[in-house]
Amino acid sequence: MRYEEFTIEGRNACMEAFRAGKTIDKLFILDGCHDGAVSSIVREAKKGDTIINYVTKERLDGMSTTGHHQGVIAYAAAYEYAEVEDILENARKKDEPPFIFILDNIEDPHNLGAIIRTANLAGAHGVIIPKRRAVGLTATVARTSAGALNYTPVAKVTNIAKTIEELKEKGMWFVCADMGGEMMYKLDLKGSIGLVIGNEGEGVSRLVKEKCDFVARIPMKGDIDSLNASVAAGVLAYEIVRQRMQ
Amino acid sequence: MRYEEFTIEGRNACMEAFRAGKTIDKLFILDGCHDGAVSSIVREAKKGDTIINYVTKERLDGMSTTGHHQGVIAYAAAYEYAEVEDILENARKKDEPPFIFILDNIEDPHNLGAIIRTANLAGAHGVIIPKRRAVGLTATVARTSAGALNYTPVAKVTNIAKTIEELKEKGMWFVCADMGGEMMYKLDLKGSIGLVIGNEGEGVSRLVKEKCDFVARIPMKGDIDSLNASVAAGVLAYEIVRQRMQ
Repeated sequence: MRYEEFTIEGRNACMEAFRAGKTIDKLFILDGCHDGAVSSIVREAKKGDTIINYVTKERLDGMSTTGHHQGVIAYAAAYEYAEVEDILENARKKDEPPFIFILDNIEDPHNLGAIIRTANLAGAHGVIIPKRRAVGLTATVARTSAGALNYTPVAKVTNIAKTIEELKEKGMWFVCADMGGEMMYKLDLKGSIGLVIGNEGEGVSRLVKEKCDFVARIPMKGDIDSLNASVAAGVLAYEIVRQRMQ
Repeated sequence: MRYEEFTIEGRNACMEAFRAGKTIDKLFILDGCHDGAVSSIVREAKKGDTIINYVTKERLDGMSTTGHHQGVIAYAAAYEYAEVEDILENARKKDEPPFIFILDNIEDPHNLGAIIRTANLAGAHGVIIPKRRAVGLTATVARTSAGALNYTPVAKVTNIAKTIEELKEKGMWFVCADMGGEMMYKLDLKGSIGLVIGNEGEGVSRLVKEKCDFVARIPMKGDIDSLNASVAAGVLAYEIVRQRMQ
């Protein structure tokens, strides 16, 4: 449903999308379906970065809006992805220490859009999202980013923890938000920094949290558990902005 | 669509909802329809705080999910509203200077829910929303508030500017976010404070802005115009939290 506008259904439509060079985020194939046409589509998918999921007929039927999926449904990206190097280059061009948002499995496209919007306005040089599980750059994301997707590069990586490792070697520091961390106002968040935002329900995954140099706590004075993911990203991003402005 | 779960359709269902004492936010009546049953419903609506809208058949048909509205559709609130006095009492009980969110026409239920969630965690004593135009406490709002609606009182007022005026007489100060204001870090936002958040598209209305003691600017370093309304509310709310913690 949330991908509706960029769902491509049926064998011909999917094959054409690959041939036209469209960025396909995910491909859903009816489990056990191996005929010629489907094999060709899978071959095209493997040339690119497409994640292939083999699913039941019930699942495909549920995803289908046309009712004519013929065992194949593709989710196409609304925007093109950048490379991590493009983000670093963006910082170099502006002669600023890199400031990057790293999203550890944001699932809600409204949150992803709002976070990219925040990244743009907080002066971040780009956003990194994971290839698997998380939501990609769909039409809903583009719309809720309020145009920020046109300016702020978004890169997609296979392994968030590994990417953090590589960026640390280039001199970046990483901070994630977690209730168990130190009060954010007490941390030094200036310099080259990566802001890690966790999944809506589960927060930052253990592996990724272990890679972070700082765990920042946003003060919580209320009765419930946590802020909305895009609000938490905004609050912590602007603490970084405040410290950088001093 | 966004009210779907709490839409009540048809004459009997609407009349019953009023008789059961349900909080009905808005009532939509087919324009020109004045028969006995409709008049009784309108009479019940006028006893409460329900806004009555006379609309065309096309509009009602578009809102209807059952196809059997019989010229009457009601939007019911998912939660009960509080009074402004309850919010002030909440602050008194906690022995804290009042900290209130005032929402000047937030239209998106996801934003309203996220803002109530933020209000709870930032330690605000309540949220004030306007009776007309804005979204009310629907099921979507309840869900996106992540439980905060059970703790944070929400009051609905006829005239936001007038309510601000009355609260100023009780010693409260008001700050709204606007690009033309002063950098938020330079303002003194401690003490009894009302945080005014504007509409998603148009920002804070002129009349309401004129009532505010401070206009705060959130630093914007990017290419696009403005943060998402719930993110902006979070960023400014947490600047207030930071200053109050000092």
